Amino acid sequence: MAEARRTDPKAITRQSDDFDRWYVDVVRRAELADYAPVRGCMVIRPYGFALWEHIQRALDDMFKRTGHQNMYFPLLIPESYLQKEAEHVEGFAPEVAWVTHGGGKELDERLAIRPTSETIICSMYADWIHSWRDLPVKVNQWCNVCRWEMRTRLFLRTTEFLWQEGHTFHESAGEAQAEVATMLDCYAELAEEWLAMPVIRGRKTESEKFAGAVYTSSIEAMMADGWALQSGTSHYLGQNFSRPYDIKYSDRSNALQYPHQTSWGLSWRIIGGAVMAHGDDAGLVLPPKVAPVQVVLVPITRSNDVEGVRVVEEAVAAIERATPEGVRLTVDRREGIRPGEKYAHWELRGVPLRIVVGAKDLAEQRVTVVRRVDGEALVVPVDAIGARLPEMLKSAQAAIFDAARGRLDSRSVDVTSLDELADAFRERPVFASAPFCNTAECEERVKAAVHAVTVRNLRADRTAGGAPCLACGGAAEDVALIARAY
Amino acid sequence: MAEARRTDPKAITRQSDDFDRWYVDVVRRAELADYAPVRGCMVIRPYGFALWEHIQRALDDMFKRTGHQNMYFPLLIPESYLQKEAEHVEGFAPEVAWVTHGGGKELDERLAIRPTSETIICSMYADWIHSWRDLPVKVNQWCNVCRWEMRTRLFLRTTEFLWQEGHTFHESAGEAQAEVATMLDCYAELAEEWLAMPVIRGRKTESEKFAGAVYTSSIEAMMADGWALQSGTSHYLGQNFSRPYDIKYSDRSNALQYPHQTSWGLSWRIIGGAVMAHGDDAGLVLPPKVAPVQVVLVPITRSNDVEGVRVVEEAVAAIERATPEGVRLTVDRREGIRPGEKYAHWELRGVPLRIVVGAKDLAEQRVTVVRRVDGEALVVPVDAIGARLPEMLKSAQAAIFDAARGRLDSRSVDVTSLDELADAFRERPVFASAPFCNTAECEERVKAAVHAVTVRNLRADRTAGGAPCLACGGAAEDVALIARAY
Repeated sequence: MAEARRTDPKAITRQSDDFDRWYVDVVRRAELADYAPVRGCMVIRPYGFALWEHIQRALDDMFKRTGHQNMYFPLLIPESYLQKEAEHVEGFAPEVAWVTHGGGKELDERLAIRPTSETIICSMYADWIHSWRDLPVKVNQWCNVCRWEMRTRLFLRTTEFLWQEGHTFHESAGEAQAEVATMLDCYAELAEEWLAMPVIRGRKTESEKFAGAVYTSSIEAMMADGWALQSGTSHYLGQNFSRPYDIKYSDRSNALQYPHQTSWGLSWRIIGGAVMAHGDDAGLVLPPKVAPVQVVLVPITRSNDVEGVRVVEEAVAAIERATPEGVRLTVDRREGIRPGEKYAHWELRGVPLRIVVGAKDLAEQRVTVVRRVDGEALVVPVDAIGARLPEMLKSAQAAIFDAARGRLDSRSVDVTSLDELADAFRERPVFASAPFCNTAECEERVKAAVHAVTVRNLRADRTAGGAPCLACGGAAEDVALIARAY
Repeated sequence: MAEARRTDPKAITRQSDDFDRWYVDVVRRAELADYAPVRGCMVIRPYGFALWEHIQRALDDMFKRTGHQNMYFPLLIPESYLQKEAEHVEGFAPEVAWVTHGGGKELDERLAIRPTSETIICSMYADWIHSWRDLPVKVNQWCNVCRWEMRTRLFLRTTEFLWQEGHTFHESAGEAQAEVATMLDCYAELAEEWLAMPVIRGRKTESEKFAGAVYTSSIEAMMADGWALQSGTSHYLGQNFSRPYDIKYSDRSNALQYPHQTSWGLSWRIIGGAVMAHGDDAGLVLPPKVAPVQVVLVPITRSNDVEGVRVVEEAVAAIERATPEGVRLTVDRREGIRPGEKYAHWELRGVPLRIVVGAKDLAEQRVTVVRRVDGEALVVPVDAIGARLPEMLKSAQAAIFDAARGRLDSRSVDVTSLDELADAFRERPVFASAPFCNTAECEERVKAAVHAVTVRNLRADRTAGGAPCLACGGAAEDVALIARAY
């Protein structure tokens, strides 16, 4: 399979040479996405969009399973609506794109293209929520938002992006906080079960929380270069929005109360995460559960060998018939393209399994299946392959997750001081965990100790139990996850 | 069932009193949608959005069945990109919302919020199409667009709306024109098979065509008041865009050619169409295939009748178990609400079937099923009802279509002169068909003959065969559909 592993050296920068350029090369050459004429905007092409559709379907099913309904709020938000929650407007105003003219006239009040929709949603629900019987409200929307970005990067940071934003209103703080945790669990399930990316859950520090939230929780995944990618966030808003937006309901004792809110969002940046977590020098490595094409069949024939063509085409048809519904299989019958080129084409696109159907193997009633994630080649009886595909896809999914899990484990270190932290990063970027007192001063010390690191979150799976903070030595309750992040 | 037919007179304006107010009342009270703070914008609420999701799913399946792929282009289009096709910019520029500031700065070039995406799509494909091997390109996007509207109306005419826009590029004019017809057929299938609205297909006149198109075809449906609603359009663009946007490919003989294009769109206005085509004084009448709730079960119990509650609850559970997967059934167990109120609640929301489960009927092992479209009540053995639901839903779907078909037939007239046209509209709005020479002058005469009528389209199902034009008496080939339109 040497030929299959080879790729055109001019095609994609090698990961080890320049990870950033490798990333852009892969995204563009695999036709996931491309730059658009407006700075910071991109086009998501059919292959990338199909990936997004699988992600949407998986997540939307989780939202519905957990009792949420979709709806849609307007793109344009009057400036005055945006300004009611002080922290929120301060956080988002610098990133807003403003509409000032419409229908050939200058507008009386300028309109923001939504950077996120808390402000418009709160304004509307102030009219719709009256009684505790109206609660909980649990809604979500799939939409586009704009945040003006200085440094942009395909999928990861774009001026316009596609995402979903969930918004809920509850009677009690406890119920709202449980919702925040449930939705973070959905994001973790999407990342781990569908995108094969192990994640670390935790709470953001004050400096990194959503503007206007009481607290923010996140999932953080490790990319192939050891950097972190925040892949979904879930916020507890408390009554920070319901008070200024004057959302009141009469509770079970007929007293007026402000509901407790949450919001949570996940964007197409997670596609960038899947690219950077699993890809290699040959291109994408897509987890089967979200791969637009799961299996590619490459018939190998010589046009002057009529009998061979017949045998191969019969075998291809038999495999297609035997493949269970739901397996996304395609046959590459393109003419004038050598098998090696076809292999490289589908490897670049990260297709999990390739089945090579050639007359020589067929003489022995066999085909060869090559697994994208590790190049493992299996020779399988031709009449068994169709039925075995679901199991082979499942095992490919597991292999991709295991590889990512293995990397996360091998590049995670515990440190107890800023010196140890600096040491841990000396060779290569890692995920460092350390007892942390969670003050702004110590967060600054951490950031100053190693170039470009930040506290990603305070791990939900660990506690420091009073151990000394890595920065000040004071008693710490939290374990900080420290990493460089996209 | 007298009680079930009754509704609160304060709730909804009667259709016969004021059709426009009836429409707004129903859309808002059934919680399909509501006004947003920005003039001309609206919020689509969960019940309305669920309807939209069913429409999207049905149409998206048709797009994929006919070989299209989804992708996503940016919201923002530089002004210079918009201006390359003269007719197009002239048609859309007055309706554009302009972004002039972003990231705290005034922009060098202002950006249009897309009113439609031909200009950005052509700009991108100029880079991606090189050879006849790259053709056809058949893509679609589901997105929001903005067109500044003076008079707005929920769903029908909103400044921002949700839609899909398909864009294709072909080697030959014939192939592109076949695509235009195929996609109009998809729209007709959606309207007739899913939304139970019979439609009339045809080509728009020059004055009504899409700005920049060679020709536009449309489907037109009749609303309950006899007015027409244009419910989907499919355009042949020829080379009108590929030339100014300089999209060139080398053909099979290695000569440079401009591809032939199509575009086609359908928006959430079709939801407004379904409301106005089928609704009555009690509210919505939803076709089962798109209804968010297809069957509502109303248990009728007295809380002091313990045995009765047990019997009813057992029957409800048995019906739920016996209901085939895929039937969208809900049980209304709300407390403190009288049965009559519950009936009105679900009638307002247009739920196709209501099953009343009460102890009295159950003593005889029966339940009563009431059909929303005509109030027909059926008494059915309780152990048969679950299995019979799919067939009853199918027949409700057919009854809704037949009612709409019957109205279309009874309110369609053929006329041969402007006098006859005026006569036809004297009593009430109708769909008038007439031989028409398709000149701008005669179109103006038609519009002047009856208040507010327009030529909706030139019917695809009829030809005039040289009969005299209703306006000028000259030989006409086309039969014009003339109506008042939303």
